[in-house]
Amino acid sequence: MGTHNIGIAGLGVMGENLALNMISKGFSVAGYNRGAEKRESFARRTVGKAAVTTSTIEEFVAALERPRRILMMVAAGAPVDAVIGELRPHLEPGDLLMDGGNSFFTDTDRRIRELEGSGILYIGTGVSGGEEGALHGPSIMPGGNPEAWPLAKPILQAIAARAEDGTPCCDWLGSGGAGHFVKMVHNGIEYGDMQMICEAFWLMQILLGLSPAEMSRVFAEWNQGELSSYLIQITSEILARTDPETGKPMVDVILDTAAQKGTGKWTSQVALDLGAPAQTIADAVFARMLSALKHERVAAAKVLQGPKPDFQGDRKEFLESIRRALFASKICSYAQGFQLMRAADAEYGWKLQYGTISSLWRAGCIIRAQFLGNIKSAYDREPALTNLLLDPWFADVVNRYHPAWRTVVAAAALNGVPVPAFMSALSWYDSYRSPTLPANLLQAQRDYFGAHTYKRVDREGTFHTHWTD
Amino acid sequence: MGTHNIGIAGLGVMGENLALNMISKGFSVAGYNRGAEKRESFARRTVGKAAVTTSTIEEFVAALERPRRILMMVAAGAPVDAVIGELRPHLEPGDLLMDGGNSFFTDTDRRIRELEGSGILYIGTGVSGGEEGALHGPSIMPGGNPEAWPLAKPILQAIAARAEDGTPCCDWLGSGGAGHFVKMVHNGIEYGDMQMICEAFWLMQILLGLSPAEMSRVFAEWNQGELSSYLIQITSEILARTDPETGKPMVDVILDTAAQKGTGKWTSQVALDLGAPAQTIADAVFARMLSALKHERVAAAKVLQGPKPDFQGDRKEFLESIRRALFASKICSYAQGFQLMRAADAEYGWKLQYGTISSLWRAGCIIRAQFLGNIKSAYDREPALTNLLLDPWFADVVNRYHPAWRTVVAAAALNGVPVPAFMSALSWYDSYRSPTLPANLLQAQRDYFGAHTYKRVDREGTFHTHWTD
Repeated sequence: MGTHNIGIAGLGVMGENLALNMISKGFSVAGYNRGAEKRESFARRTVGKAAVTTSTIEEFVAALERPRRILMMVAAGAPVDAVIGELRPHLEPGDLLMDGGNSFFTDTDRRIRELEGSGILYIGTGVSGGEEGALHGPSIMPGGNPEAWPLAKPILQAIAARAEDGTPCCDWLGSGGAGHFVKMVHNGIEYGDMQMICEAFWLMQILLGLSPAEMSRVFAEWNQGELSSYLIQITSEILARTDPETGKPMVDVILDTAAQKGTGKWTSQVALDLGAPAQTIADAVFARMLSALKHERVAAAKVLQGPKPDFQGDRKEFLESIRRALFASKICSYAQGFQLMRAADAEYGWKLQYGTISSLWRAGCIIRAQFLGNIKSAYDREPALTNLLLDPWFADVVNRYHPAWRTVVAAAALNGVPVPAFMSALSWYDSYRSPTLPANLLQAQRDYFGAHTYKRVDREGTFHTHWTD
Repeated sequence: MGTHNIGIAGLGVMGENLALNMISKGFSVAGYNRGAEKRESFARRTVGKAAVTTSTIEEFVAALERPRRILMMVAAGAPVDAVIGELRPHLEPGDLLMDGGNSFFTDTDRRIRELEGSGILYIGTGVSGGEEGALHGPSIMPGGNPEAWPLAKPILQAIAARAEDGTPCCDWLGSGGAGHFVKMVHNGIEYGDMQMICEAFWLMQILLGLSPAEMSRVFAEWNQGELSSYLIQITSEILARTDPETGKPMVDVILDTAAQKGTGKWTSQVALDLGAPAQTIADAVFARMLSALKHERVAAAKVLQGPKPDFQGDRKEFLESIRRALFASKICSYAQGFQLMRAADAEYGWKLQYGTISSLWRAGCIIRAQFLGNIKSAYDREPALTNLLLDPWFADVVNRYHPAWRTVVAAAALNGVPVPAFMSALSWYDSYRSPTLPANLLQAQRDYFGAHTYKRVDREGTFHTHWTD
């Protein structure tokens, strides 16, 4: 019988770094990978440490203490099913399989159902923080079989990042695919955050003519205040960086075509399925697609006209307005993300704890930010909060900041600077705070051409008008 | 052996109206429905006409001439598979099954594959125009087995609407799910059109204080010009209508919570899958979702602040600016829809003919409009047009209209009027005509935290920077 505390199936930098993190917390690790190259790298990086590298499933499983705990770190989709299929014949009731990749949450649901009856426990867990996070403490978002949590908890909480108050950024999120769902929304929010920072950067560059070095200082200053976050911090660092080859600022030599890996797209698609208007996240995803059409954009620029950007106002005041637009938009994007999680919870019955979720995003993950503490406080005050914006702290911020935000959006529109996420967040805000919207006309149109019926403002019931009489 | 030219499986108002349309063009129709009520209605409406009502599959199939032509008019999803399953044992090689509902295009692909080898031909066809269109001439968008087209063509083209130049609004679109894909995009565009009309209506009401009767006259006037379209026309009629119960304008008694039936959502989700930035359509779908959150909005209105709308400019000029914003936004929304079809065509190899598609949207369907003739001309001039906006006619319109459009978006932002589709279309326009976008910073961020690599502006290759050195 084996003695290693945990097995990692599927090596690579993420798996290696998680293993080193576990070893540093006193756990022993067995690593397994089919390909020799990754095995060798794992062996090299764990030499002299509490780890063993195995090259067959039998050897891997035999190296583990019982009940066995195995973390799969393989690409989402078919590879996860393949590894489960490989491992399953060698496992016993009570053993625990964990999927630490970015699996789609319904796949996790399905895998749990498929293992039902086998006695094998299953956890699907998001892990955020990139390679550095994996090594020094990621944010970990587990969900799945509730009876599996006691087995996973000692290891996952030990390796997780810790918030300023010492709480590990890892806690149980719910049954089925809850963990992967929360991680997916985390990534969708990350898409929104990144796009909004890019819009602030672009407004400063195009309208205010700031240099990368100047903008680096602006972001560094913003990082001292309520916008304080990992992404603002690295933005400041990136903008300060010079390309060693050309001596130009790094951002000026990087091509403006963004790639995407799927979780932002999934967040948007699931929002559409659940009827949750997470439009700012979707618009951030669409912005990446537009960036990818570089050749088309260069050609279109010769044909399609816009105004020559010409900023006339107070530059210092406008810079502060950009900061306010960024913070207000960010708040609305998070409000949409939490609204989406509420919609999913109503559909899937996970009983998500929004205070817990915001708590474990406070450190380790890409969206870690000071204001996640404010979100946690909001849900601590009112766990059944309908919308983040209705919390007094957040309402106060947007009520104070919306005039500046409007100025920025108006200036962007008039000067031809695309700010899709700022605009999307503002139209969401103005819609959400509107007791009436023009959907009355829309319902009349639907009833006119499709007899879809409508409701009335003055009494219950469903009505149809013969419009063409 | 039967003598009826075509069978309709799945009755109801759409099926009945299509049958009456076919009969009026000289075809004889056999109707089949499992439920007695719809059979009775069909029998009543076709009494004395070239039609037979059948109550069993055997009777239905026996009533048809060979090769049999059957149009299924049942709800998308499982009901289509159920009807295929019922019919299949009674059909012979060479018989033709047509699905006239709003099936998801990959379902149509699958059904064609499943029937391969049986010799049964299959067409999936969108039918747009609502109940009135079905009776008097809808727009019909067929795709599927190419060898089925000669069988379907005489009937479908006979019952279709005709454009002003006499062309039937029905033509072959391509193999597999091409027809249902094009119909899905049609519906997505319809979502965009309706939302943008609502935004124009809302700006007139909130910023200019126009009454429904006044707005009805504005839309009637707009309907005489380049915006001339079915949806503008019915909007004018709707706004002129008084509620007989209360004497108030109809729009003022209709509740502002819009419903949606799925095709707009699908269009947005497929756009996300294909990497096509059809964001204005998606934002129109999200706008319906926001409208549905009526209770939340009423509560939020008490907490979240905005400016008191206060329009100061020239009212007549602003009205014309709204018209220009509407037309420019509409053009961008269609450009996105055609961009999406191009992306799908690249993926599925249908060889879509965009001139044909715009041609058959010119009459019969909900989005029928004068400017579809302009789209047809654009694709006639250049069938391989990368983007609709690059056509000289369309480029000229947006180049002339963008300043007014910007004024409207800026006024909406500053006055707290939500115009998600106008904003989304403008940010799409300004992104699409931008040779550079801030995605260079975004790629740097992704490379910083996830080692995702980036490309450079000055030479080929894939690069990674050790940002934290």
